[in-house]
Amino acid sequence: MKASQQVELFDTTLRDGAQTAGISFSIEDKMRIANRLADFGIDWIEGGWPGASPKDDLFFEQVRHRQWPNSSLVAFGSTARPGHAVEKDRGLNNLAESGADAACIFGKSWDIHVTKALGITLDENLELVSGSVAYLKQNLGTVMFDAEHFFDGYQANPDYALQVLQAAANGGADVLVLCDTNGGSIPSRVFDVVREVVARFPDIIIGIHAHNDSELAVSNSVAAVQAGARQVQGTINGIGERCGNANLVSVIPILKLKLKIDCDVSGDELKQLSSLSSFVNEMANRLPWKHQPFIGQNAFAHKGGIHVSAIRKQSSLYEHVDPALVGNEQRILVSDQAGRSNILSKMQLLEPEAGLAADDPGVAEAVKRIKELESAGYAFEGADASFQLLLRRAMGRFKRHFELVRFRVYDEKRGHDDKPEAEATVQVRVGGKLKHSAALGNGPVNAMDKALRAALVDAYPNLSSMQLSDFKVRVLSTRQATEAMVRVLIESSDGHRKWSTVGVSTDVLEATYRALNDAIEYKLVIDQVPPPDELLD
Amino acid sequence: MKASQQVELFDTTLRDGAQTAGISFSIEDKMRIANRLADFGIDWIEGGWPGASPKDDLFFEQVRHRQWPNSSLVAFGSTARPGHAVEKDRGLNNLAESGADAACIFGKSWDIHVTKALGITLDENLELVSGSVAYLKQNLGTVMFDAEHFFDGYQANPDYALQVLQAAANGGADVLVLCDTNGGSIPSRVFDVVREVVARFPDIIIGIHAHNDSELAVSNSVAAVQAGARQVQGTINGIGERCGNANLVSVIPILKLKLKIDCDVSGDELKQLSSLSSFVNEMANRLPWKHQPFIGQNAFAHKGGIHVSAIRKQSSLYEHVDPALVGNEQRILVSDQAGRSNILSKMQLLEPEAGLAADDPGVAEAVKRIKELESAGYAFEGADASFQLLLRRAMGRFKRHFELVRFRVYDEKRGHDDKPEAEATVQVRVGGKLKHSAALGNGPVNAMDKALRAALVDAYPNLSSMQLSDFKVRVLSTRQATEAMVRVLIESSDGHRKWSTVGVSTDVLEATYRALNDAIEYKLVIDQVPPPDELLD
Repeated sequence: MKASQQVELFDTTLRDGAQTAGISFSIEDKMRIANRLADFGIDWIEGGWPGASPKDDLFFEQVRHRQWPNSSLVAFGSTARPGHAVEKDRGLNNLAESGADAACIFGKSWDIHVTKALGITLDENLELVSGSVAYLKQNLGTVMFDAEHFFDGYQANPDYALQVLQAAANGGADVLVLCDTNGGSIPSRVFDVVREVVARFPDIIIGIHAHNDSELAVSNSVAAVQAGARQVQGTINGIGERCGNANLVSVIPILKLKLKIDCDVSGDELKQLSSLSSFVNEMANRLPWKHQPFIGQNAFAHKGGIHVSAIRKQSSLYEHVDPALVGNEQRILVSDQAGRSNILSKMQLLEPEAGLAADDPGVAEAVKRIKELESAGYAFEGADASFQLLLRRAMGRFKRHFELVRFRVYDEKRGHDDKPEAEATVQVRVGGKLKHSAALGNGPVNAMDKALRAALVDAYPNLSSMQLSDFKVRVLSTRQATEAMVRVLIESSDGHRKWSTVGVSTDVLEATYRALNDAIEYKLVIDQVPPPDELLD
Repeated sequence: MKASQQVELFDTTLRDGAQTAGISFSIEDKMRIANRLADFGIDWIEGGWPGASPKDDLFFEQVRHRQWPNSSLVAFGSTARPGHAVEKDRGLNNLAESGADAACIFGKSWDIHVTKALGITLDENLELVSGSVAYLKQNLGTVMFDAEHFFDGYQANPDYALQVLQAAANGGADVLVLCDTNGGSIPSRVFDVVREVVARFPDIIIGIHAHNDSELAVSNSVAAVQAGARQVQGTINGIGERCGNANLVSVIPILKLKLKIDCDVSGDELKQLSSLSSFVNEMANRLPWKHQPFIGQNAFAHKGGIHVSAIRKQSSLYEHVDPALVGNEQRILVSDQAGRSNILSKMQLLEPEAGLAADDPGVAEAVKRIKELESAGYAFEGADASFQLLLRRAMGRFKRHFELVRFRVYDEKRGHDDKPEAEATVQVRVGGKLKHSAALGNGPVNAMDKALRAALVDAYPNLSSMQLSDFKVRVLSTRQATEAMVRVLIESSDGHRKWSTVGVSTDVLEATYRALNDAIEYKLVIDQVPPPDELLD
């Protein structure tokens, strides 16, 4: 056990993570993610497989101009193709010329894969491994060897699996990475095997590369570190093929906060963990996993009236780590179990100077309204801005800035290949004035959004900086589908802030209108734009 | 280590799982889930907390009529309130009278929680624990004691934590459940502590109740079993407060398939695991976690052209367990890396008798069309039915059953509180005939769906059994929001089967129309309804 040593972090979001079903990063996305990883303190950033696709080649071209004082770029590849001289191997030469600081090449360490999948002898494979590593070492500062299927291979034929590692070591490998390629290993086994390998190769860094097929990838990575591994490979949010890779967003705080094993992510950088996770979700166009450990929206969310005051008083009794350390925060959830103390606590946060007490009639009013809306299908857990407006209304601290008079939406498509035409008209009252506007759009939602803004922007010019950044539609009952209530969640942004609003209706356009209405009202409230005197809510 | 003994499975989906943010089970949902759990082979089914809410009371009333030959109902509750005689404690009497077969009561085992949160002395708490357990044992066959915050308590004051367990044992507890209430423990620590507790209480079953705040709940449960725990508490799909509970859907196959530790779920029942997981998602109105270990849609999904033939040939080299054992299946993914061999393999599965070869022009046509559609924003990974139609078209084995001439959708809302009016007209050509129909709907999507069916049902009466069971809308680029492309995924069902289709457009109604169109065409294809002669696609 070398618990006092640092652990190297190796991120493969751009390579294994890019294999995730449904994720497709553009080159620009990859550049932005790589730079964020470098800022965060990741030691090794694997960019892709040079030569495998034009996208990967273009990425390695562009990333030559990187300025990463503390991070290194890794190019991924495989051992040479059998039957060629290694110095003539196209794949190895792609790596050597990629401009990366290091290469990480995988090779077979499970005997049956050598004979069945590669179709060569066990000895030929050993030569391939040592020869490939040695050739790359002539061209690159650092060479890592990914021993594919290592744990299965070690189970089947431990001598041979160790011979493969020895071959890589003989070639000059700097890191021997033990891969649980199929994701089937359990932590106690990983611990035992890593400990043996560490004892066998005391002078080489041992790495762990785990997959999550048994929901054990984080645990296997932690067990490997406890057994002496000194490099952890994984991805942000655990994205990756099948069930994903080891989730660095969980591994890093476990190492730093629980095992007190340090890495190049400082305490200040760790506070960017939530933000990094969200950023990668956004680049991947992936919905956040609300229950994600450490950084999820619900990770420190407490429900139920009784405990809330105790939790506020002494968080450490109810929270396994301080959420601020990973850039997250405590949340008190609104729910159909919402008690008065939850609501009061939220109202006090919103307007600390109002000095609200538990018997304020606004508290009872808000509880009643929330119960009504929740039973109609509203959910405020993902719509903080709508919820704040509701509380402000209940406290008598909200006035509408405008009022809908009518909207009308029209959408027509003539024939299978025709582009449809969507038009919306919106009439609103702002103060004493009626505003009527119309807009065409790429679709009915866009047309309505444009028409509503057009009707309001003269009165409220600050709305021009606001845009909708996401919207989601959810059917509330799976038994009635298109007849059922739908809930629209809209996320808006003005460059500085993001906020979410909700609308519910059987009509997707009415639900959208309601969420849009709240999104605009919220923007006007936070910008402290005074409402016209004539409108009172 | 008593590795040869069985492990008891304790499900708390209906209690801890019901605490999940965003999940609200009706009583009917709870009844259906409980019956499914009993069919599946769960030993202990925790139904809720009698007396805590009218919903829980009604559930315990209804579940009195259960017929579960091999499962027992558990009522959850807490130790008695301090300062009362236990036999007069309302909470304990609610449990005794609940009609459950067993009670599981929690009590404090972390000294600071006793003195700070309960505000009583450490000795008073011990009396409370033993007295509460003893009173329930007079009324119920089985009493389990949940030692809340046990691992944190053991860390802070091991002697006291063990005294609490001893008090429960003195009261006659049948099971001592060690709870990682805050979810912060790591597996190596859980293993050590459980081993000590098992050694201390050799004649009582030790249970583990883990939370997933560190992404380690499954691993902690497995480590506890390896250390001698003989009851595992968890939920289906790991739902639960904050980051969730230990996911039984992962724990069970790990125990049975990897550790060879048996439980009352038989091999045949284990094949229902995927179906049980989907069922609970449906009851919870929760999107499936596609990457979920063992049972997720992507858990055995393979991407990338090269390996596919090897994977088909010798799955065990690439899959940690046989997917059929947990009711899942291997999937070959379509993606922008889709190679010809993937497509060919899918086509061969679809029409085995066609004897397609790799050089069939249909294969190249399909690859080209998939690339075009994927670059326009289509994703077929969640839309098998649309994908099959695409392959059939490319193979020249698809004829349209109808053709859109026009649709027109109109939606109007007059004033803030007015109910909007949505109307759709749809004109289609079926064979040589034009059909024109109109419908009002609860919203524009519903109006369009009804109008389209109305136009088609005379020609195709089997469509009357089909209904839409879910639809989802996803904005494809987060930078342009309402102007951007949207992807609509529709899930349809006809009582026997479910299938998913996709449509993409900047116009949500056009995208919906496209997905609806595919959904209907697919139903007609699988029902082998012949298309009219005049239409050819």
